Amino acid sequence: MEAVKIIKLKESILENNDADADALRAELRKRKIFTLNVMSSPGSGKTTLILATIKRLKERYRIGVMEADIDSAVDAQAVLDAGTRAVQLHTGGMCHLDAQMTRQGLSAVDASSLDLVILENVGNLVCPAEFDTGCSRNAVLLSVPEGDDKPRKYPLMFEKADVVLITKTDAAPAFDFDMERAEEWIRRRNERCRIIPVSAKTGTGMDEWCAYLSGEVDRWQSG
Amino acid sequence: MEAVKIIKLKESILENNDADADALRAELRKRKIFTLNVMSSPGSGKTTLILATIKRLKERYRIGVMEADIDSAVDAQAVLDAGTRAVQLHTGGMCHLDAQMTRQGLSAVDASSLDLVILENVGNLVCPAEFDTGCSRNAVLLSVPEGDDKPRKYPLMFEKADVVLITKTDAAPAFDFDMERAEEWIRRRNERCRIIPVSAKTGTGMDEWCAYLSGEVDRWQSG
Repeated sequence: MEAVKIIKLKESILENNDADADALRAELRKRKIFTLNVMSSPGSGKTTLILATIKRLKERYRIGVMEADIDSAVDAQAVLDAGTRAVQLHTGGMCHLDAQMTRQGLSAVDASSLDLVILENVGNLVCPAEFDTGCSRNAVLLSVPEGDDKPRKYPLMFEKADVVLITKTDAAPAFDFDMERAEEWIRRRNERCRIIPVSAKTGTGMDEWCAYLSGEVDRWQSG
Repeated sequence: MEAVKIIKLKESILENNDADADALRAELRKRKIFTLNVMSSPGSGKTTLILATIKRLKERYRIGVMEADIDSAVDAQAVLDAGTRAVQLHTGGMCHLDAQMTRQGLSAVDASSLDLVILENVGNLVCPAEFDTGCSRNAVLLSVPEGDDKPRKYPLMFEKADVVLITKTDAAPAFDFDMERAEEWIRRRNERCRIIPVSAKTGTGMDEWCAYLSGEVDRWQSG
C-alpha cells in the first residue's frame, strides 16, 4: 500500500485572494490543466463521487486528486488505493481553501503531468463558498438525506456552483426530498448552473455527469 | 401565523470569547436558565430533533428556541408554528456563533422567563466547535447518512460534545453505517460524552435523550 503524502498547508498571506485566484486560473488554462473544486456538507458523498468519476474517466484523462481535510488521510488513501495519484492537504483546523493553498496542493500533486485535477474541499457548506480557489469549475453536492431546503439556507454556496450534483438519489424512498422544490430553490439563487441528480451506488446520472465534466475539460484544453 | 422575529447579529468586539462565555454560563446558572447548544452538519436533523424534544418536554419546562442561520427564517417559523417561543438569528454570512452573539439571542427570546433555551447553531461541523457560546451543554448530531467516519474527520466538534446524538437511525438499512465504528471514533476523541442513537421519525431513543436532557436541566436549576 502506497503511503499518502500529507501536505500541511501554510496560511495565506495575500490580501487579494480574488486576484490571485484569477491569476491561477489563467495560468492553469495556459498549461491545459482543468481543476474541479468539489464542495459540500460533510458526508454528502464527495469522495464516493470522485472515486466513481475516476473509474469512468481514467482511460481518457490523466487524473490527480487533492484531498483537503482538517485531519486524517483516509480520503487520499482511498484514492491512492484505487490507483490514482492523490495528496492529502491538511488545513490545520482551517475551514476552507483559498487560491494560495490550491497552489501548494497543485505543486504537491505535480499537476504539470495531469489533465484533470480534482480538489475535494473541506466538508463545509458555508466557508469554502467565500474563497475562490482558482479552480476552473465549482461542483456543489447536495445529498438527498440533507433535505431539499439546503439551497435556501446556504445560498452563497449554490450561487457559486457551476454544477449542482444531487447525490444519494438511491436513498430517496427513505426521505422526504422533493426534487422539484430543490431545483426551485437552486434556481432562485443560480439560473445558469447545471443540476444533475446522481447515485454513485446505482450509477444513475453518472453518464450525464461524466459527459458534462468531459465536455468542460475538453473545452478548457482546446481553449 | 405569528411572524418570526429576526435578529441581525452584530459582530463581536470582545477579544477573549472564552472568558466571556464562562461569565455568561455563570450568569445563566445563577438565573437558573439552562441553555443547550445544538451543532451539526447541514441537514443532520437539528430542527426535527428540537421539535420532537419540545413536544415531549413542553409541559415540564418553559422552553424557547434561538435559530441561527445565515439566511431565511424557516426554522424559527417551524418552531413558532408548533406553539413555542422562537427567534431567528441572522449571522450575516458568519459561520458560527460566539458568546456575545448568544447574549443577543437570549435577550431577544426573553430568556428570563424560560427554563430551557435551545440554540440551533449554524449547520457546520467545523467552525462552531471553535467558539464557546456560553451555553450550559453542547449537543452534537451525527446523522446516519453522513457516515460513521465523520468523528475521525472533524475531531474538534466531537471533542467539544457533552452528548452526541446519532440521528436518522431509521434510515440505517439504506446506508453502510457501522454504529460500533462510529462510537469507537467518537471515544478516541471524547471519553466522557453520552452517545445516544435516535430517530425523531420513529421515536427510537427519544425517551433516553429526553431523560438525559431533563436530568441536566434539573441539576442546573437546583445547582
